Amino acid sequence: MIESEICRLLDIRYPILQGGMAWIADSHLAAAVSEAGGLGIISAMNASVEYLKEQIDTARTLTSRPFGVNVMLMSPHAPAVAEVLAEKKVPVVTTGAGNPSRYIQMWKDAGIKVIPVVPSVATARMVARAGADAVIAEGGESGGHIGEMNTMALIPQVCDAVDIPVIAAGGIGDGRGLAAALMLGACGIQMGTRFLVASECGIHQNYKNKVLKASDIDTIVTGRRLGHPVRSLKTRFTREYSRMESDSEISDEKLEGLAVGALRLAAVDGDNERGCFIAGEIAGLIKKEQTSAEMIREIMEQSEILLRGTKWVK
Amino acid sequence: MIESEICRLLDIRYPILQGGMAWIADSHLAAAVSEAGGLGIISAMNASVEYLKEQIDTARTLTSRPFGVNVMLMSPHAPAVAEVLAEKKVPVVTTGAGNPSRYIQMWKDAGIKVIPVVPSVATARMVARAGADAVIAEGGESGGHIGEMNTMALIPQVCDAVDIPVIAAGGIGDGRGLAAALMLGACGIQMGTRFLVASECGIHQNYKNKVLKASDIDTIVTGRRLGHPVRSLKTRFTREYSRMESDSEISDEKLEGLAVGALRLAAVDGDNERGCFIAGEIAGLIKKEQTSAEMIREIMEQSEILLRGTKWVK
Repeated sequence: MIESEICRLLDIRYPILQGGMAWIADSHLAAAVSEAGGLGIISAMNASVEYLKEQIDTARTLTSRPFGVNVMLMSPHAPAVAEVLAEKKVPVVTTGAGNPSRYIQMWKDAGIKVIPVVPSVATARMVARAGADAVIAEGGESGGHIGEMNTMALIPQVCDAVDIPVIAAGGIGDGRGLAAALMLGACGIQMGTRFLVASECGIHQNYKNKVLKASDIDTIVTGRRLGHPVRSLKTRFTREYSRMESDSEISDEKLEGLAVGALRLAAVDGDNERGCFIAGEIAGLIKKEQTSAEMIREIMEQSEILLRGTKWVK
Repeated sequence: MIESEICRLLDIRYPILQGGMAWIADSHLAAAVSEAGGLGIISAMNASVEYLKEQIDTARTLTSRPFGVNVMLMSPHAPAVAEVLAEKKVPVVTTGAGNPSRYIQMWKDAGIKVIPVVPSVATARMVARAGADAVIAEGGESGGHIGEMNTMALIPQVCDAVDIPVIAAGGIGDGRGLAAALMLGACGIQMGTRFLVASECGIHQNYKNKVLKASDIDTIVTGRRLGHPVRSLKTRFTREYSRMESDSEISDEKLEGLAVGALRLAAVDGDNERGCFIAGEIAGLIKKEQTSAEMIREIMEQSEILLRGTKWVK
């Protein structure tokens, strides 16, 4: 049994968080992960507060364990979403794509544990000063929006910079990754890509099949030209998008237009032509569909063997 | 004491290799690292065989311990360099920037241990089939030329793919990084950036000062447009170069011209205006100049505390 600060802080059994992926992480996946002893997280994405309220209510019918909601701070609904989270007193809030400082006090007053996702030391310091309970330091191996730093170099630098618990994310998919994260100074992990192929994850089967078939170098980063780099699976669409990014005759507006709806087209419709199939570099390691509970059990067993005898596993 | 396959294979005391950095890794640095119980590596870079012969002879006057030579396979001198290495029977050869398969048998016949640097699973498999004794799997956190993958996701995937020992590189600068690498399945590490500020490293003091002052996000990747991405410290020169890469009115020839000699200008002349100061993302962690022996002792002590009780430290 791994003894971790993050388990005590969040009242969870295993130090494994499930990433709050837009169009993917709903109440069913989140509840399954929380029931299995991890922390499931619902994505509030760009949706309205009605969608979010319904998701929170559903999660509560599916599990009595703690779960979280991820707020995308760039969403036009973010201020309203932030208030709903306080009203609903969700156990945990994670944040991405922006500065959550203005909401932190309100959430803490509602008894919520606040854990921003950070891409750098400076951001980690900022949210720690603003009262965050922990941070998720995410390296660029991850799927979706990425920062400049990668996990191996980011985690120890963030750990040296803040006094609150650090959760490692980016490039982690098994017990080796969890054990490595703990060695780097983290006290837990967040995984997104592995949970894509969880039985309880409702994405289109085409999406799951793409993840299962991916090799190590089957992801690509697009969006650098517009200042929002995103990692997803290589497809004809993302390769072509990448080529257009380096073509100065293609306008920024055209590039923006092509990206609209691409996450939804992948997750909901499994659209091989126009979908953007978000996944991290660890996709190449992921070879089977399992329940969330099986994944978590396997990861804990593997990491406990590696860590036996250390301060983590006595 | 960490018991590692790579120590047995290379007859070294500690599982720490020093990266063969062009214009930086000479016989003095390599001998110091080897004397301290790691594996020092001389860079053959783009230089002629005369330079290399002299470097090997000097290393042998400075240490009786094993050391290595890194061959840059794109160098026009590579075929001649490869033969000199066999003649001189250097203990270890590492290779970068190309496919070393055609030289591996010749080197092995000379009793040399051959360890290619690889950026992906496919390359690792290829060199293992060609007879490599081990691989250095290097993630994109590292300074210098980088591949697509980053360390946290790359190491376990390479370990699953080949039966030969895997050494982890990219983003590693202390005992936490070594311990994490072992958890991921590697049996040792290669470090470049930390050795930049070793007392025995002969680079210009301006260069060392830049590394010591760097924060986590002070590196930048340039050269993507020309197909040869390189990570180095952010300077006015590299920021401006990056801007020019996205300007379609700047020709490829102009970009190539600006890069010529930039490594030498940094390492030898400490030229703040025109030098390209290669360093990895772990630079932000590196805060003091030390001897190579002090660095290695500190890393081993830190990792042994983290790993006590595991199969690595009994």
